[in-house]
Amino acid sequence: MSDSPISAEQSARELDLTNRVLRSFDGTHDPRLKYLMTELVTSLHDYVRRVRLTEAEWNAAIAFLTRVGHMTNDRRQEFILLSDVLGVSMQTIAVNNEAVGDATEATVFGPFFVADAPEIPNGGDLAGEAPGEPAWVEGTVTDIDGRVVPGARLEVWEADEEGLYDVQHDDGRVYGRAHLFADAEGRYRFWGLFPTPYPIPDDGPVGDLLRAAGRSPYRASHLHFMVTAPGYRTLVTHIFVRGDELLDHDSVFGVKESLIHDWEHHAAGDATPDGRDLDGRTWASTRFDIVLAPVDAI
Amino acid sequence: MSDSPISAEQSARELDLTNRVLRSFDGTHDPRLKYLMTELVTSLHDYVRRVRLTEAEWNAAIAFLTRVGHMTNDRRQEFILLSDVLGVSMQTIAVNNEAVGDATEATVFGPFFVADAPEIPNGGDLAGEAPGEPAWVEGTVTDIDGRVVPGARLEVWEADEEGLYDVQHDDGRVYGRAHLFADAEGRYRFWGLFPTPYPIPDDGPVGDLLRAAGRSPYRASHLHFMVTAPGYRTLVTHIFVRGDELLDHDSVFGVKESLIHDWEHHAAGDATPDGRDLDGRTWASTRFDIVLAPVDAI
Ligand SMILES: [Fe+2]
Ligand SMILES: [Fe+2]
Repeated sequence: MSDSPISAEQSARELDLTNRVLRSFDGTHDPRLKYLMTELVTSLHDYVRRVRLTEAEWNAAIAFLTRVGHMTNDRRQEFILLSDVLGVSMQTIAVNNEAVGDATEATVFGPFFVADAPEIPNGGDLAGEAPGEPAWVEGTVTDIDGRVVPGARLEVWEADEEGLYDVQHDDGRVYGRAHLFADAEGRYRFWGLFPTPYPIPDDGPVGDLLRAAGRSPYRASHLHFMVTAPGYRTLVTHIFVRGDELLDHDSVFGVKESLIHDWEHHAAGDATPDGRDLDGRTWASTRFDIVLAPVDAI
Repeated sequence: MSDSPISAEQSARELDLTNRVLRSFDGTHDPRLKYLMTELVTSLHDYVRRVRLTEAEWNAAIAFLTRVGHMTNDRRQEFILLSDVLGVSMQTIAVNNEAVGDATEATVFGPFFVADAPEIPNGGDLAGEAPGEPAWVEGTVTDIDGRVVPGARLEVWEADEEGLYDVQHDDGRVYGRAHLFADAEGRYRFWGLFPTPYPIPDDGPVGDLLRAAGRSPYRASHLHFMVTAPGYRTLVTHIFVRGDELLDHDSVFGVKESLIHDWEHHAAGDATPDGRDLDGRTWASTRFDIVLAPVDAI
């Protein structure tokens, strides 16, 4: 962006500085930390030199990070939000879940998982008292060679139709989350809610950044899964809804084409897969066949 | 660092993600912000991919930044310290103070400047009640063509012999700082203190990083200058002490060869330049000729 070329003397001064900083990490005890820090110094210095960062911009960056730090507390992690909206979280997930055959792709974990969600039987209902349209989800769990994975544990969690997770209410309610186990043939099925969109918290500095970029804070509608089975890589993923207008604008870049699902919409009174009486409500359904990567794939 | 090569499918997924994030900034209103953000995304994603950042390392980075944010308050700026020890502050200064002829080089501003330091006459004493060895500093202020710059304003500040600035005491004392004006021939002179080393605050996450890298928190001994004159680029710099063991290990990379000065050490009772009676104390002296760059040099 600098209009005038940089003199040889100036360039030498800048490179000499970077080299002095790199050498200062020579004594780092942990070789991986040494590698991470020297690559970080290289990247940061290259950025400052390439964009010819002004002192006013440096000050603005310090002030922005300070706001991010002061917004972060036990219930709000603004640094993770920042990593999310810059796609750094998803890139880290991509790097750590390398493509293996047609193993199901991973996506963001998000802040709303709860470790001790209630167990439901295979075919049970995880919606609980959460408001929303009932949705039937079923599928099988296999490995990348198409062999059944028996008894996988599935954690499933989602927002209610207002776009809020149970933990975003202050009253200790538990709904829209459960764990269940696939059967000996790898089959699973459950009732949940048809997913709805919701915004990430945008009343802090990350929200200001999104507004400056003309970006929406909304996440595409999704249902969270975490699938574990001994010998397989833990799969953290979502399923999305084909046709959702937000698919191309997900604020944290969690959408992958392979995770976009066709959902069927059923009229009130249509027969349900398990004979459940939905009391005159419409309902939706989809199929999600899960393919787990072997644990030694990375 | 990854032992196995990345498959074409994996590489395509990673690059596609980066491109989606870059496109999300297409609607940024301010073109400079758009440029800064897209270059930042490019740098961050390239870093994550290049080092194959693990999820544990990403978590450690989030936790580290959170600690930096929580350590920062009105009196302590841990993000600036972090920028300093990574050499990012000095690289920003280098980029914004491009080499022009033999203009005096700039260095870090530091956190201890005070805007309303007392005025002393040319030849006065800025040490005040600060403990330390008296030091005489004199020089001239010229432009890069060797022409006198008359009446430049010099702000000078320094730590006492214990390595503490006045503002680091809680009692409101003012010492070791002043401003003065060069005369019509560009000449200035003052009494201060022979500079002493001091550590940057190392009881926070930045201190932990320095320890992990086997680095010292100490800054090389220095005297701060800020020199302003109409039509010239403001010069923020230090002078250092030749022979100081810390010159090669300054924790914030502020040392530049051109700023290292020879100091003369004088015995107690040696005649002083202005006839001042130092009451039997030893004293030191140096010369610092200042060359200001024109304001349109960048
Ligand atoms: Fe979610
Ligand atoms: Fe200092």
